[in-house]
This record gives sequence, C-alpha cells and structure tokens, in this order.
Amino acid sequence: MWIETKTEMKETSRSRASFSRRVLDGVMLCRGDMEHLDKYIQDMSFVLQLAVWGLRGVARVILANNPLSGALILAALYWDSPWQGLLGTLGVLASTLTAVIIGQDSADVAGGLHGFNGMLVSLLMGVFSSAGDWYWWLLLPVILGSATCVFLSSGLTTFLNHWDLPAAVFPFNIIIVLYLLCTGTNNPYFPHNPAIPPGVLKPNDTELMAVEVIRGIPLGVGQIYATGALGPSLLILGAIVLYSPLLCVHAVLGSAVGTLAGLSMAVRHDSLYSGLSGFNGALGCMTVGGLFFTFSWRTNLFAIASAFLSAYSDIALSNMLGTVGLPACSWAATLTATLMLLLSGSLAAYRIPIGQAKAPECNLRSRSQWKAGNTEERESTDV
Amino acid sequence: MWIETKTEMKETSRSRASFSRRVLDGVMLCRGDMEHLDKYIQDMSFVLQLAVWGLRGVARVILANNPLSGALILAALYWDSPWQGLLGTLGVLASTLTAVIIGQDSADVAGGLHGFNGMLVSLLMGVFSSAGDWYWWLLLPVILGSATCVFLSSGLTTFLNHWDLPAAVFPFNIIIVLYLLCTGTNNPYFPHNPAIPPGVLKPNDTELMAVEVIRGIPLGVGQIYATGALGPSLLILGAIVLYSPLLCVHAVLGSAVGTLAGLSMAVRHDSLYSGLSGFNGALGCMTVGGLFFTFSWRTNLFAIASAFLSAYSDIALSNMLGTVGLPACSWAATLTATLMLLLSGSLAAYRIPIGQAKAPECNLRSRSQWKAGNTEERESTDV
Amino acid sequence: MWIETKTEMKETSRSRASFSRRVLDGVMLCRGDMEHLDKYIQDMSFVLQLAVWGLRGVARVILANNPLSGALILAALYWDSPWQGLLGTLGVLASTLTAVIIGQDSADVAGGLHGFNGMLVSLLMGVFSSAGDWYWWLLLPVILGSATCVFLSSGLTTFLNHWDLPAAVFPFNIIIVLYLLCTGTNNPYFPHNPAIPPGVLKPNDTELMAVEVIRGIPLGVGQIYATGALGPSLLILGAIVLYSPLLCVHAVLGSAVGTLAGLSMAVRHDSLYSGLSGFNGALGCMTVGGLFFTFSWRTNLFAIASAFLSAYSDIALSNMLGTVGLPACSWAATLTATLMLLLSGSLAAYRIPIGQAKAPECNLRSRSQWKAGNTEERESTDV
Repeated sequence: MWIETKTEMKETSRSRASFSRRVLDGVMLCRGDMEHLDKYIQDMSFVLQLAVWGLRGVARVILANNPLSGALILAALYWDSPWQGLLGTLGVLASTLTAVIIGQDSADVAGGLHGFNGMLVSLLMGVFSSAGDWYWWLLLPVILGSATCVFLSSGLTTFLNHWDLPAAVFPFNIIIVLYLLCTGTNNPYFPHNPAIPPGVLKPNDTELMAVEVIRGIPLGVGQIYATGALGPSLLILGAIVLYSPLLCVHAVLGSAVGTLAGLSMAVRHDSLYSGLSGFNGALGCMTVGGLFFTFSWRTNLFAIASAFLSAYSDIALSNMLGTVGLPACSWAATLTATLMLLLSGSLAAYRIPIGQAKAPECNLRSRSQWKAGNTEERESTDV
Repeated sequence: MWIETKTEMKETSRSRASFSRRVLDGVMLCRGDMEHLDKYIQDMSFVLQLAVWGLRGVARVILANNPLSGALILAALYWDSPWQGLLGTLGVLASTLTAVIIGQDSADVAGGLHGFNGMLVSLLMGVFSSAGDWYWWLLLPVILGSATCVFLSSGLTTFLNHWDLPAAVFPFNIIIVLYLLCTGTNNPYFPHNPAIPPGVLKPNDTELMAVEVIRGIPLGVGQIYATGALGPSLLILGAIVLYSPLLCVHAVLGSAVGTLAGLSMAVRHDSLYSGLSGFNGALGCMTVGGLFFTFSWRTNLFAIASAFLSAYSDIALSNMLGTVGLPACSWAATLTATLMLLLSGSLAAYRIPIGQAKAPECNLRSRSQWKAGNTEERESTDV
Repeated sequence: MWIETKTEMKETSRSRASFSRRVLDGVMLCRGDMEHLDKYIQDMSFVLQLAVWGLRGVARVILANNPLSGALILAALYWDSPWQGLLGTLGVLASTLTAVIIGQDSADVAGGLHGFNGMLVSLLMGVFSSAGDWYWWLLLPVILGSATCVFLSSGLTTFLNHWDLPAAVFPFNIIIVLYLLCTGTNNPYFPHNPAIPPGVLKPNDTELMAVEVIRGIPLGVGQIYATGALGPSLLILGAIVLYSPLLCVHAVLGSAVGTLAGLSMAVRHDSLYSGLSGFNGALGCMTVGGLFFTFSWRTNLFAIASAFLSAYSDIALSNMLGTVGLPACSWAATLTATLMLLLSGSLAAYRIPIGQAKAPECNLRSRSQWKAGNTEERESTDV
C-alpha cells in the first residue's frame, strides 16, 4: 500500500513539476525566435500570416526575430503617437506585401526580413515631416518608399552575399536620405524639417544635467524607433528582454557608450538628452554582442569597441550630412557592423553565418551545430 | 502543258515573293545589332573599321548597337550644334583609339563598348563650358577625359564582373564630376557654368504650361545626348526606332514617367520644359524594358518601376550635388539599372547575361538559346 | 713550388674578391626587403621585434618594406618636428600592438602592414590640430584612431581580397576624415584648422616663382609624411633610394607630374610651393611604376598616366571636400592605384600578385618565379 502512496506522491510531485515546467515552457515558448509558431500558422489565412510576418519585421529593427516583441514595440509606438504607429504599421505591411508580389524568397518574407526597412522609412518620414500629424498625403511617399526598400534590399543582398554580409538597414538609410533630398525643406507637398548636426556651432551655454544624460540612455534605445519618450522606450526595452535578456544588456550598454562618446566630443546637450547620441552605439553593440557572434568575453570587448566606433562615426557623419540638412540615421552603426562582420583574426573565429544567426542564448547553445553546418556548407561551396 | 504554266506561275510568284523578301531583308539588315557587318568590314582598312566602331559607340549611349543608328544620332548632334558634334566625334574616337592602344579586348572595342563613355564626357564638357563654342583649348580636356574613361571602364568591368554587371556609364559620370570639380566655376583656362538643382528655392511664380511639359517628353530622350532642341531629339528617336521599335517605346515611356515624377515633386518648370526631368527615367526604363531582360508584361512593370526610381533618385541627387554646383548627370539611372540587374526574385528569372544582350526583339526570339548558353556557361565556370 | 705560389696568389685574389664581395653584400643586405632580418630577429625579445615591425610600418607608407628606410624616415620626422616624430612613433606602435592583440595574421604584422595607417593618422592629427605642439590630450585620439585603423584594415582586406587588391591607405583616409568631421573646427577639446581647397576663389595676385615650384617637387615626397621642410624631405628621398633607387625615381617623377597638373589647373601658389600638389602624383606613380607591376617601358608609361590621374583627381576631391573644410588626404592616389590594379588589357600582363610584390629590382629579377607561383596558386584555388 505504501508503495501505491509513494507512487501517488511521485505522480503528484511529477504533475507539480510538469505543471511548473509547463508554465516555464509557456514562457519559454514566447521567447527566442519562436520558430514553432511558423508550423502553427502555415495553414492559417493569409491575413494572419501577414500579421505575424509584419510583427517579426517590426522586431527585426532591433535584431529580434519574435512576433510578440514586435507586438510590444508596436504598442509602444501607438502609445507614443498613434499617427507614428499607423505609419509604422503601414510601412511594414507595404514592404512585406511588395516582397510577396515581386516574388522574393518566401522564407525571408516569413522571417520579417523584408519588413523592417519599410517600417523605419515610414517612421522617419513621419518624424521629419513638418506638415504635422494626420497629414494624409504623407501616406503616398510612405507606401512608395517602403515598397522601394524591397528592391534595394534584394539587390544589396545579392551584392553583399559574396562576403556573407546582410543587407541590414542599408536600404532604409538610402531611401530616407533620397526622400529627404528629393523633397527638400520647402517642398509644397511634402515639407520637412532639416536635421540639426550634433556638433555645436556656438558653445553650450547651459549647465549639463546628469539626470537628463542618464535618462538619455534608455531613450537611446527608443530612438532606434524614432521615439523620444521614456515610457515607450522602456516598453521597447521590455520587448527586447522578452526576445533575449542578453541582447537587452547590450542595447543599454551600447547606448551608454554612445552617450559617453557624445560627452567626450562635447556635442549639443539636446542630442544627449534626447538619446540621439546613444542609438547608433546601441545598434553597433547589439549586432556584435548579440546576433552575429557567439557570446564570450572576447566578443563582449569587441561589442564595446563596435559601440564606440559606431557612436563616433555617427557624430562625424551627422556633422557632414548636417551641412546639407540631412540626418545620419543609422549609417554609422550599419557601416560599423558590416566592418566587424568582415574582420579577420580572433573575432572571425566567433562569427556565425548570417543564415544561422538566432537569439544570443541560442547561439551560445548550438555553437557546435552551426560550426558543423558551417564546415559542411564550405565544403559544398568549395567544390 | 498546264503543268508548265503552273510552274511558271509558281516561279513568278516565287520571284515576286523573293523580291519583296529581299527588300524586307534589306530593311532588316539595317536593324538590330547588324552583326553581319562585322564580317564584312574585317578585311577593310583600319580607318573604316574605326568609323564603324565609333558609330556603334555613339549608339551605345542609348543602349543600341547599330552603326546606322549611330550615324543618325551624330547627324542630329551636328544639326543641333556643329561644335557639339565635333566634340562628340572627337570623344568617341579618342576613347576608342585609347582602348586599342592599351590593349583592351578587341571584341569590346569593335562593339563600341569603349566609345560611348568618352563621347558623353566630351558632350557634357562642351555643354557646361562657359567659354562659348569653338574654344579650341577645350579639345585638350576632351581628349584626355575621353581617354581616361577607358581606364575606368576597364577597371570597373573587372570589379563588377563578379556579379555579371556592366560598367555602363559609371566612367562617364565619374570623369565629368571630377572634371567639373577640378576646374571649378572660375578657372582661368576652362571655366564652366554651375549646375542648377531642380528643387525650387522659391515657389514657381509662373503658370505651368501643359504643351511645354508634353514637348519635354521627346526632349528628355534628346537630353541623353545633352541636346535640348526638338528636331534633333526626334531624329534621335528615329535612330532608336531603326535599332528597335520596342526600345523606342520604352524611351518615350520612361521620359514621360520622369516628367510625371518631376511634376509630383514640384521641380523648377525649366527642368520640365527642357527634358532634364525625363532623361534619367528614359534611361532607367530602357535598360530594364529593353536590353537586359526578356520582354514580357512583368518586365514591363519593372521597367516602369525602374523609371520612377531613376527619376526620383535623379531629383534627390541633383538637389544634393547642386549644393556644390555639380550636375547629377545619369548617376541615378545608372545606379538604378545596376540595382535592377542585382534583383533576385521574379525579375531575375528574365535576366539575360550581359554578354548575350541584344536588341529587345532578338532577346525575345532567342530566349531558349541564351538560356541554354547560360546553363552551359554556368556549368563551365562551376567546375 | 711555383705551383704553391700560384695557389697562394689565387687565394689572395680570392680573399680580396671575397672581401669586396662581403662589403658589397653588406650594402646589399641593407637594401630591398631585408627578408634575412626576419630569421635573425625571430628569437629576440618582443620589444626588439616590435621595433623592427614598427620601422617596417613607417617605411610602408612610401611602399618600401625596409626597417632601415623606416629608421631614416623617422629621423627625418624628428628632425622636422620632435612632436610630430613622437606622434608618428606612437601611432605606428599603437596600431601594430592592436593588431597583435586582436590576433591579426602574424606575417602581416611582422611585415609592418598594420603600422603605416596608424602612423599616417597620427601625423595628420598632429598637423591639423590647432592646439599647438605638446598638447598632451591629443595622444588620446592618436592612440584610439591608430588602433581603429587595424579594424578597418582587416575588414577592407577581406572585402578587397576578391580582386586581389590591397587595403592600402584606405583605412587612414577614412579615419582621418571621420576624426576631422567628428571634432569640427571649434571643438573645445580637440580643435583643428580647416583644410583650404587648392582651387582659387580669387585670381592669384602674385607672380609664380619657378624656383619655388621646382623646390616643391622634392617637398611633394616629404608631404607624404606631412613634412613641408626641404631637409627632411631629402632625407626621406634618401630612405627610398636605400630601399630601391627605381622607386625613388618614380617618386620624384610623380611629384613633378603632380606639380605640372597643378600648374595646368591654376591652383593656389601655396599649394604648388608646399608640395601638396605633388604628393598624390608621387604615390600614384610609385604604386604602378614600382611595386605592383614588373618594371618595363610600358609600365612606365602607365605610371605616368597614373600620376596624372592621381594629381587631377586630388585637385577635384580637394575642391569638393574643401567646401566642408576637409582635406582630400591621399584618397585620389589610393583610388587611382586601385583602379590601375583592376585594369585589364596590356597592363594586367605585368601585374604581380600583391602577396608577392617586393622591391622593383626584385620584381624584375624574379618575374618567372612569381609567374610560376601565380599559375600554381590559380590552379589550387580553381579546384
């Protein structure tokens, strides 16, 4: 009899363990790349699939590949400004649909790889527009610009494929600069505000406020989505934590490095307070520290170096492009990340092929796997 | 007996058919790529060969490979301005001769591939010169600039060969920008007029004239050769028809798209009237719709997209380069065309390898042939 | 007995011949690439090795690979200005050490390939600084900038490797432009003087002095190291002679060509007198005439063409970058040299693979060897 009791107790403890495991599994299911979702939705209607692809696209901007993170970020954008939220939604849908229409690789489309550039273009068009919110004519360039991103993304991928480099946010950076150049500041249909370079023309006449500078660090992560408010920025940070806590650490670290770089170059105080000094550093740090390299203390040092390089390059490019009233967007971080991916030497040993990059936690786990895959791939391409 | 009569009648109808076929053949001989001419002239004197190579080079600017089209275009240039005609002739000869001297591939030279960049450089040097016509010192930079194009063309071809991309008019665009930067506006020897950006600094104060705008569409094709007069522009259109009617349709369509893009951005009225808004659109449309892709309704849609992208990029680049007094030349169309050639997805399926691109009509006919050739080539390069 | 005398005499003459041969050998040992030194120092302490690597790096700026040339050049820099000498030393050490730390290829490090970009960055930072000599804070950007060069050098090498192109001084050019953009002219910590474009805004009001112009030719070689004094420039020329007399001839020839190009474009007289017109021509001429191509009369003509192209491009780029207060550094020569290395046709036949480029005299001697090596290499990469 006691045997039965023991068995019962065992079963109880098992069911308890299995319950808590199920809860943990439930949480775990929402984290990382959520690849299981793809199998689940593949029989659903096109609209639902498009929604998932779009949400993945929204999250891809901060190098995350998770539809729930995307939903949180979209919520943050609508919280900050419904108009900006609408533009972002439209942009990600327009570019994803264009990719479907012109017959891009379906795995790329499903992974949201054709959505994030369009989204960024729309958000930045909205931010720079001087026609105010709910200026409906703006939807025209938003849709066209987002659609064009797919062309650039596809072409650049073919070009950069030789070095196993991603097209990243190059398409966004090119399209937004072309749009701003095309319209000019006093265009009768699509007027926009000129960008102000971070370099000071006259000495900063106000005292630097430490609290504001520290507040600028989380704002730096928000500025990746052109959001300058604290609440939405923290929600975006939350979305990154959901995907990968390690990536979030790098985002904050990179933003702090960027702010430090801004301080050392005595940039305008506004630039520090608003987080504009930090976002290129954050992007540069996340790329190296999280996505494309196996996590280790060496990679970590390279991530910090990448953040510094991104931040200083951003100041330089902003000063140059600012002379013609253009913003530097994320040119600096994108170029720096591309450079780091090309690096030979000890960093290259930690390089993960772009087709196999996942959440940092996964990269850590399956290093031996992608190494094997890498070798196989090389063998197959060599002959 | 009636059998003989029948045979006679048959013969008569045959000879009639053969006569009309001969006339048709005679017309057909002057169209398309005129490859038969190469065999005919290969035993002729060098001067005659050079003339044919040069005329092919003249026509290559509008992506045609036909010496008679080249002769018509040259006539149009002499008609518009004898000085410009002389500069163009000198440019095409200087660069073709340089290519012969520095030992470039003879098939490329014979196809006029080393002539068109030199010609464009000379024409633009003439147009921007503020020293007036018949300023003989200008021949010095014209010859040197045209010769340098061959170096750039050869180097860029090696560089772009990895992606099966042509050097196109990149050499011309680089050299003319360097020349204008080098001399500056108030150079004592080679002064030139600064370029005026299409974006308006003050609102257009005159009414837009629809007739003038429509007149700008054929002028847009003429502006490819820096010609702003209607007669020569129509003659150039005729030269394109001689090579390929399909190409001509795309030229006019592209120019119209460019004008439309200019209207939507409210550019200077002068820019619309003179055809400067249209020529990048025309070039972008011709490349995709005619030369490098098999003709189909899908390719046609891509050609229109390419025309829009070229036209908007041209406005953007003109506005940027205009801040330092430089023209955007055909940078926009060249970059857009290069992008379209890199595109993966459904457009790539219609792509013709650059070595096998011919007149659109031929491309249509021999698709199965180049497909077979393409597979063979790939097989031979794979191993 | 007479036989013995004869033998003795023979021995005496032998020893005399061997003595003079030894002296000759001693001189010869200090010339060319001094590869024997590598075996000699490989068991020495790290500090001594680092010194040799650094001195090779110093000489690599003028395409020489000889530690004694490096020592002479460093002496010339200290002679001109001890502060500049210190900055140069620090730069070359910082970048070489960074390369060791981040695990770059040890053969590249030992050949000084990671030193020369850092050195140039430091020298130019010193020259453009408006804070005066012995401004110790400048050491911070000098060390960071030099270290960053290694990242760029490594990344660009991977990128350009596809075409067997060297990263050359692209890293230096990128970093110095970014630094100057980043700090701006009135930065509170690191102020610098804006560069003055060579194109004249008002006509030169002084008479051109022929003596000064001729004096500018050797100064043009000195300007490669940002030295504007005659003595140090001549010492640098001496250092080039030690490595390779042929290279020195090309340096002077190229500087003369650059001065000629400057005269033809009526640049500012200061630009001619200081040698700034000449140094890009010198670099362009040396690359083609000495290092990467077998020496022949044909290569020589190409070297002169390269010098002209470098010089004119430099004027163009200086005018453009000068509008935002930036110098064109050696962008023109680096781009031109890259173009020449990509050239197909008769020049390509003389091309030496970059891994096997040595002093021009050696290249002449061992042409058959690298040809054989080249064929082998191709065979091994093809399969």
